[in-house]
Amino acid sequence: MDWFEPIYDYLSNRELWADLLLRTIKIIAILVGTWLFLRIAKSTLGKVFAIRLRSPLRLSERREATLIRLIENILTYVVYFISLVMILSEFEVDVTTLIAGAGVVGLAVGFGAQNLVRDIITGFFIIFEKQFSVGDYVRISGVEGFVEEIGLRVTKIKSWTGELHILPNGNINQVTNYSIHNSIAVVDVSIAYEEQIHEAEAVIIDLMDELYEKFDAMIVKPEYLGVQDLGASEVVLRIISEVQPMEHWVIGREIRKAVKQRLDESGIEIPFPRVVMYQRDEQGEVKEKA
Amino acid sequence: MDWFEPIYDYLSNRELWADLLLRTIKIIAILVGTWLFLRIAKSTLGKVFAIRLRSPLRLSERREATLIRLIENILTYVVYFISLVMILSEFEVDVTTLIAGAGVVGLAVGFGAQNLVRDIITGFFIIFEKQFSVGDYVRISGVEGFVEEIGLRVTKIKSWTGELHILPNGNINQVTNYSIHNSIAVVDVSIAYEEQIHEAEAVIIDLMDELYEKFDAMIVKPEYLGVQDLGASEVVLRIISEVQPMEHWVIGREIRKAVKQRLDESGIEIPFPRVVMYQRDEQGEVKEKA
Amino acid sequence: MDWFEPIYDYLSNRELWADLLLRTIKIIAILVGTWLFLRIAKSTLGKVFAIRLRSPLRLSERREATLIRLIENILTYVVYFISLVMILSEFEVDVTTLIAGAGVVGLAVGFGAQNLVRDIITGFFIIFEKQFSVGDYVRISGVEGFVEEIGLRVTKIKSWTGELHILPNGNINQVTNYSIHNSIAVVDVSIAYEEQIHEAEAVIIDLMDELYEKFDAMIVKPEYLGVQDLGASEVVLRIISEVQPMEHWVIGREIRKAVKQRLDESGIEIPFPRVVMYQRDEQGEVKEKA
Amino acid sequence: MDWFEPIYDYLSNRELWADLLLRTIKIIAILVGTWLFLRIAKSTLGKVFAIRLRSPLRLSERREATLIRLIENILTYVVYFISLVMILSEFEVDVTTLIAGAGVVGLAVGFGAQNLVRDIITGFFIIFEKQFSVGDYVRISGVEGFVEEIGLRVTKIKSWTGELHILPNGNINQVTNYSIHNSIAVVDVSIAYEEQIHEAEAVIIDLMDELYEKFDAMIVKPEYLGVQDLGASEVVLRIISEVQPMEHWVIGREIRKAVKQRLDESGIEIPFPRVVMYQRDEQGEVKEKA
Amino acid sequence: MDWFEPIYDYLSNRELWADLLLRTIKIIAILVGTWLFLRIAKSTLGKVFAIRLRSPLRLSERREATLIRLIENILTYVVYFISLVMILSEFEVDVTTLIAGAGVVGLAVGFGAQNLVRDIITGFFIIFEKQFSVGDYVRISGVEGFVEEIGLRVTKIKSWTGELHILPNGNINQVTNYSIHNSIAVVDVSIAYEEQIHEAEAVIIDLMDELYEKFDAMIVKPEYLGVQDLGASEVVLRIISEVQPMEHWVIGREIRKAVKQRLDESGIEIPFPRVVMYQRDEQGEVKEKA
Amino acid sequence: MDWFEPIYDYLSNRELWADLLLRTIKIIAILVGTWLFLRIAKSTLGKVFAIRLRSPLRLSERREATLIRLIENILTYVVYFISLVMILSEFEVDVTTLIAGAGVVGLAVGFGAQNLVRDIITGFFIIFEKQFSVGDYVRISGVEGFVEEIGLRVTKIKSWTGELHILPNGNINQVTNYSIHNSIAVVDVSIAYEEQIHEAEAVIIDLMDELYEKFDAMIVKPEYLGVQDLGASEVVLRIISEVQPMEHWVIGREIRKAVKQRLDESGIEIPFPRVVMYQRDEQGEVKEKA
Amino acid sequence: MDWFEPIYDYLSNRELWADLLLRTIKIIAILVGTWLFLRIAKSTLGKVFAIRLRSPLRLSERREATLIRLIENILTYVVYFISLVMILSEFEVDVTTLIAGAGVVGLAVGFGAQNLVRDIITGFFIIFEKQFSVGDYVRISGVEGFVEEIGLRVTKIKSWTGELHILPNGNINQVTNYSIHNSIAVVDVSIAYEEQIHEAEAVIIDLMDELYEKFDAMIVKPEYLGVQDLGASEVVLRIISEVQPMEHWVIGREIRKAVKQRLDESGIEIPFPRVVMYQRDEQGEVKEKA
Repeated sequence: MDWFEPIYDYLSNRELWADLLLRTIKIIAILVGTWLFLRIAKSTLGKVFAIRLRSPLRLSERREATLIRLIENILTYVVYFISLVMILSEFEVDVTTLIAGAGVVGLAVGFGAQNLVRDIITGFFIIFEKQFSVGDYVRISGVEGFVEEIGLRVTKIKSWTGELHILPNGNINQVTNYSIHNSIAVVDVSIAYEEQIHEAEAVIIDLMDELYEKFDAMIVKPEYLGVQDLGASEVVLRIISEVQPMEHWVIGREIRKAVKQRLDESGIEIPFPRVVMYQRDEQGEVKEKA
Repeated sequence: MDWFEPIYDYLSNRELWADLLLRTIKIIAILVGTWLFLRIAKSTLGKVFAIRLRSPLRLSERREATLIRLIENILTYVVYFISLVMILSEFEVDVTTLIAGAGVVGLAVGFGAQNLVRDIITGFFIIFEKQFSVGDYVRISGVEGFVEEIGLRVTKIKSWTGELHILPNGNINQVTNYSIHNSIAVVDVSIAYEEQIHEAEAVIIDLMDELYEKFDAMIVKPEYLGVQDLGASEVVLRIISEVQPMEHWVIGREIRKAVKQRLDESGIEIPFPRVVMYQRDEQGEVKEKA
Repeated sequence: MDWFEPIYDYLSNRELWADLLLRTIKIIAILVGTWLFLRIAKSTLGKVFAIRLRSPLRLSERREATLIRLIENILTYVVYFISLVMILSEFEVDVTTLIAGAGVVGLAVGFGAQNLVRDIITGFFIIFEKQFSVGDYVRISGVEGFVEEIGLRVTKIKSWTGELHILPNGNINQVTNYSIHNSIAVVDVSIAYEEQIHEAEAVIIDLMDELYEKFDAMIVKPEYLGVQDLGASEVVLRIISEVQPMEHWVIGREIRKAVKQRLDESGIEIPFPRVVMYQRDEQGEVKEKA
Repeated sequence: MDWFEPIYDYLSNRELWADLLLRTIKIIAILVGTWLFLRIAKSTLGKVFAIRLRSPLRLSERREATLIRLIENILTYVVYFISLVMILSEFEVDVTTLIAGAGVVGLAVGFGAQNLVRDIITGFFIIFEKQFSVGDYVRISGVEGFVEEIGLRVTKIKSWTGELHILPNGNINQVTNYSIHNSIAVVDVSIAYEEQIHEAEAVIIDLMDELYEKFDAMIVKPEYLGVQDLGASEVVLRIISEVQPMEHWVIGREIRKAVKQRLDESGIEIPFPRVVMYQRDEQGEVKEKA
Repeated sequence: MDWFEPIYDYLSNRELWADLLLRTIKIIAILVGTWLFLRIAKSTLGKVFAIRLRSPLRLSERREATLIRLIENILTYVVYFISLVMILSEFEVDVTTLIAGAGVVGLAVGFGAQNLVRDIITGFFIIFEKQFSVGDYVRISGVEGFVEEIGLRVTKIKSWTGELHILPNGNINQVTNYSIHNSIAVVDVSIAYEEQIHEAEAVIIDLMDELYEKFDAMIVKPEYLGVQDLGASEVVLRIISEVQPMEHWVIGREIRKAVKQRLDESGIEIPFPRVVMYQRDEQGEVKEKA
Repeated sequence: MDWFEPIYDYLSNRELWADLLLRTIKIIAILVGTWLFLRIAKSTLGKVFAIRLRSPLRLSERREATLIRLIENILTYVVYFISLVMILSEFEVDVTTLIAGAGVVGLAVGFGAQNLVRDIITGFFIIFEKQFSVGDYVRISGVEGFVEEIGLRVTKIKSWTGELHILPNGNINQVTNYSIHNSIAVVDVSIAYEEQIHEAEAVIIDLMDELYEKFDAMIVKPEYLGVQDLGASEVVLRIISEVQPMEHWVIGREIRKAVKQRLDESGIEIPFPRVVMYQRDEQGEVKEKA
Repeated sequence: MDWFEPIYDYLSNRELWADLLLRTIKIIAILVGTWLFLRIAKSTLGKVFAIRLRSPLRLSERREATLIRLIENILTYVVYFISLVMILSEFEVDVTTLIAGAGVVGLAVGFGAQNLVRDIITGFFIIFEKQFSVGDYVRISGVEGFVEEIGLRVTKIKSWTGELHILPNGNINQVTNYSIHNSIAVVDVSIAYEEQIHEAEAVIIDLMDELYEKFDAMIVKPEYLGVQDLGASEVVLRIISEVQPMEHWVIGREIRKAVKQRLDESGIEIPFPRVVMYQRDEQGEVKEKA
């Protein structure tokens, strides 16, 4: 009996049980408070956004929905976390020790999860800053295609050959968007060194006028720029044409075909690679052929 | 006797033994509590998922199993860790000191293990977001092939030449999935500069109609795009064909064969590389041959 | 009744309620103080900048607005954060524990958000140091174009072919600005090895004088530099011309065209690739052709 | 005497010596406890593994030995570390200060040692997940060869030309294993543009049947795929053959030899590079030879 | 009344107000002390530098101004920070909590700002160590040009074609300075395999003597080095000439022109690419041409 | 007098001086203890190693010396550090503050020194695991050569052309050791498409037998593998020969010379690059030459 | 009066002023102690090095000076830092708070300064380990040249074309030193396939003997290695010659010149690129030329 006395004393202590009761009540109060707080917060959030939408900021509806969902998620997790800590501290678990102990694991998790966090932060800014929209033609991290879906963590891009590229948002450093401004179709045409440049220019400029009337996608009349390069076997002339976004491939093909045919008709040569050949015999003397 | 008196006092102290007894009971209680908690938590988890499955979220069964296993694992380790700390604190080991002391080691482990954590986090998202499924043809980190297995830590991809690529999930930054959308077969055909482009076009367009009837894998009629390039020795024409996913290689080969044969029949030349050669003698004068 | 007595005692304690009241008052005081402080701080900030603007520092107006907005934002968030902590500490939530507990999450967020912070810090310096302005032609991280917008987080650059490049400021390491100094048009012309270099030089130098009178974009007379390279088949001569910023492409094309025509007129050959060919029969003896 | 009195008091204090004695006993108890714990733990570990082995998990024996050794090592170091801290705290060295002081050094060591930790963690997973076995032909980090040894820290790979590559496991990010699935031998054969594709196809398909009977390493009949490419001077046909793992090099050489001989026999030309040459005199007129 | 009594007690406590007064006085003292300290520190700093300048360290005046400004800035920010903390602690804000709370944000800022700090530290060393001066021709991080401005955060380099490169100092890892030592002009000349090497050597060495008298930028007589390479079609001879810094481009062009003309005069051939051609008929027999 | 009284009291306090004396004694005791401990530890270490050496582990003597020296160094620094902290704490310097204060500096040092730590850790493993020995031919980080020295921090490699490469051990990620296994000499020989493959095979296999008798460095008879490639102008045959480590260069040269001579003798052609040339006149008609 | 009473009490407290006095004295004592300690430490350091120099370690004098200066600097900064903290703690500034507060800034500085620390640590080891000396020809981080200066933070290398490369020591990962061992000049000579290899070998070996007598820089007789490669048009023979450090460029040029002349004299052909040409008419039949 002697040994168990302190244990008995420990268990028969009235304050222990009153304390337990009090803690139980507190825990229930925390749970109810958490639930109430979240309900109120979410409904408030909805109203705030509803008001803001009427303001000139004008987020698109889909964008708005994404933002509300994001903020709700973050809020919920933060409140849950606070409630959990409050409840745990009622259980007299030494929270600090636990957390400190979790630090080693936490360090690994923290480092490992940084990519996840970066994805979400970048995703938020892509949506918020409207860097690109679904349907835009973009180039990101070396892949090109039409944007199929913009999510908080990943963006999906469909290449024109049918592949679906799935990119974590955190990897999206540099975005090239082809769908915002008009595109420029660039066509380089080679003519032979023997041809007169000004004749070729005249033919090309005439053709440009005709083409401008034929294709609606051309915003302004195509422009002849000049002698882009003096190549090994050819003089390179450059033609550009401002067209509607993403129409530069189609228009480029049309200009290429038309220029080729017109130069053929005008008798201006598009040159093959050329080489000047000296024939010599092995004694190093110039070869006399015949 | 004098010396040992405090030790004797220390050992004969009744409260010491009562304390030991109390601690033993507490430890047993912790162990039982841990076991009970885990049992309840796991069965609850199963039920929650069972309910959720009937909801429209519809995770595939295999996916669901992976998620339940993952959550169970994490839960188990966290609960074990908490129990361990609670038991240790009963042994009066100064837990904080231990943990702080483990910090140097922990730093190294934390850094070293971050890859492991990143693998698992990324693996979780790949499974949860359905970026690709077993059997899909994908390109990841420079390797291509059919997905053979998606695990929490590694993904296995079987290349068409038979190699098995094993990729840690944390290295999967950018996924290209070929099996979701229809593929596009792209065939570039060269014709000689001497040929009339419109004649070649007519031949190709006729052929496209015939091919469309022949191959079921073609989703829509193949399309002739136009003059893709004015090369050094040839005019390059492009043909594309939307086909069922991953059929573009087969269909591409068929189109290539058919176009080659049809151009031959129509007498349209597919050109070899060309060169214009000037023969000159060493005095820099034009060579008169004959 | 016995059990509930301590709880009753707890609830009927007059100091508890007085304490609650006192805290409520303090919280209200904190909220009011926060609001007041921010109002005053913002109006002071406006005045300070108004004064500074009259000083010789002369920030452009748009730049100034960006800076004020930035400072206001940072100030607001810092004050909100302090108020929040003060209010929380009135609720007797153990703030340190909470924050320590948030550390694991915080680590991940901190790492994940560092890109965001770097974007803003770099953005601030780009604006403050006037590295480039809207409308400048720049090259950054491998993309070239006219600056369309400089923001705190991203910079937008419009390439001449119409793409819009969106660059996070933190990725802007090295800026090349073409619009600050005059540009130099560089034209390399090849002449045949058989030609006399000094003759070609005379022709080119004459032409340069003529061109200088023709094009206003040339700042000084174009300069003939000399023999840049002794190539495999040609002697390469270099001509440079200092022109107004970004006019070097246009002027370069004009010089190229003019030089080509003038060399043609002067009978100086622009050479094709050359090769000396030895014909030999298979017995290794020099072939005697006829 | 006056001065030394407190020192004398300090030394003659009976509790000091009793305390020392008590500590000595405790230290001995810790040492014995550590030794006992490790003995028991190791023998338990052996039994647990013995039981598990009968379960369907079936680790190979060598693998099992590696795992037991690893777990024993880690356990031993952890227990030693705890004992050391417990003993040090009996010496009244302020452990926390020491450890905090060691932090600067620890930081450097922690960072420096992270590679070591990563090596071991990755090594563990390579062994546990059976990514490859001794004898497999693999490609890792740009080196190829047969696996000679898999250790906890390094993996040794013997290239077919005899070099031994020693790779730290932490550098093994992406493993390509050639020994798990059947290999595919890929042979590309070129035929001249003048040949009829269907004739060549018939010859090749006939040959494939013959080869299939000749080589046991072929799993299924080799397959003729079709026109892989329309090259500059040749039509490229592709043949593939599924063979036993790593036999694709041998079989590929055999197919290449057989196809070459069969095409020779059938009079189907394997083309040399071709070029069409136009001879022209320097006045730009077509040269009339003769 | 009962309820408000403790509040009333709280507010009517005389020590509370005395305390407030004392704090106010202390804050004013801190502000005055800060102001005084900075004044004295700055004037002292100026004097210290004035003395040091007379010492043999000899920093240029502009350099000195930059350093003083830098040290003043850092000092000011540190003193402001200390004062702020001292004042805050008078307000009974729990500073530690605040700072700990700011840790999460601080981590992000700290990581984000490290580039800024690195820029300034590197900038300081570039200025202090005189790695390059304004006007020097340097190559840094892949860009080349004349240094236009060296700042604490960025360095500006003007390329010879007119672009202005703006480099953060932290990115300046490796500096190549062309303006400190004499430059070497390197000219490689090819002669035909048929020529006698010693004849060409004699011609070149003669020419070097003539050139040395003609160009003042040559520091010593140009040197003929020997047979640098036995190329496919030519023997490559190398000539070098030590010239004044950055004159190697000009002198190189002059040497190239002179050597080309002298070899022409001496009848030594500068060879075109050569090829030996065997003509064969398709039966694999040596072709007998007529 | 009034003012100095507390100071006087402070100084005349007898316990102050007794305390000082006690501390002095303790410090001396620490110093003596440190010295004793190190002596004993080092001699014990020597004995432990002496015993271990007789065990089957068999470290080479030089290796053993390196390890003992390393462990002694680390032990010494750790003991010195502990003594220093113990002495400092007797001086009543607030060690924690000092160390915390040193944290900022320590962070920089810790990061900066991590390379040093990594060098030593990797160096230890290179020595311990016998990855390579002095005299081995290895390739590490892109440099190749014979190992001249393996140190704890750097490894020195002498390339066969005489350069000495000095590599920090921490940069040694991937080691390729050529001196452990036999080398394979690989010789690729081209024969003309017109030749019969089986004839060439017979000639080569005959030659291999002769060579095997001639060169002792060949471990087994050289092996003829088959048709490695069907090139543009040639059929490539592959021969391999297993030779003593690092003899593959010498043997490769011998095989190459022998095969070339034998094929010449057998009249089997080693082909030059080939090209089929079509001559055409500019009207696109086949040229009729004469 | 009532309000100011506590303030008056505060100020008239005699212990306050005695305390101030005591602190002042302590501060002076700290300052004097710091000064004394540094004087003694520096002179001791000099003596220790003076003794060590007589030992067989033999550091060069310049090296020794650098080390003493480095250790003195580090010692001084550490002692200053300790004194500063001791003085600050006398001022009752809460040092811990300050330092913790400085943590955010410190983190940025610590990260930013790590490069600086790494530079100095690496610099120390370069000097201490004698990796290279002033005047050596080295290749580091892609730049080559003669070492001009080795500092604690940067190393300066002068390229042979005159540029000065300035490298932070922390960037020096891998050093290649050409000045320690003899260099090897490697000369590859091509001969025609038609030549007899053994004849060319005899000519070359004869020449090597002659050259060895002519050039003192050759350490041993140059060596003929054998057939290095069977190229497309030529058989490549390799000659090597061990020469004094850095003489391999000069000797290589001499060997190249001598071999070229000797092969000419012996009538052994150095081949031009070769090609076998088949002429064919467009009907795919072998062309019959006349």
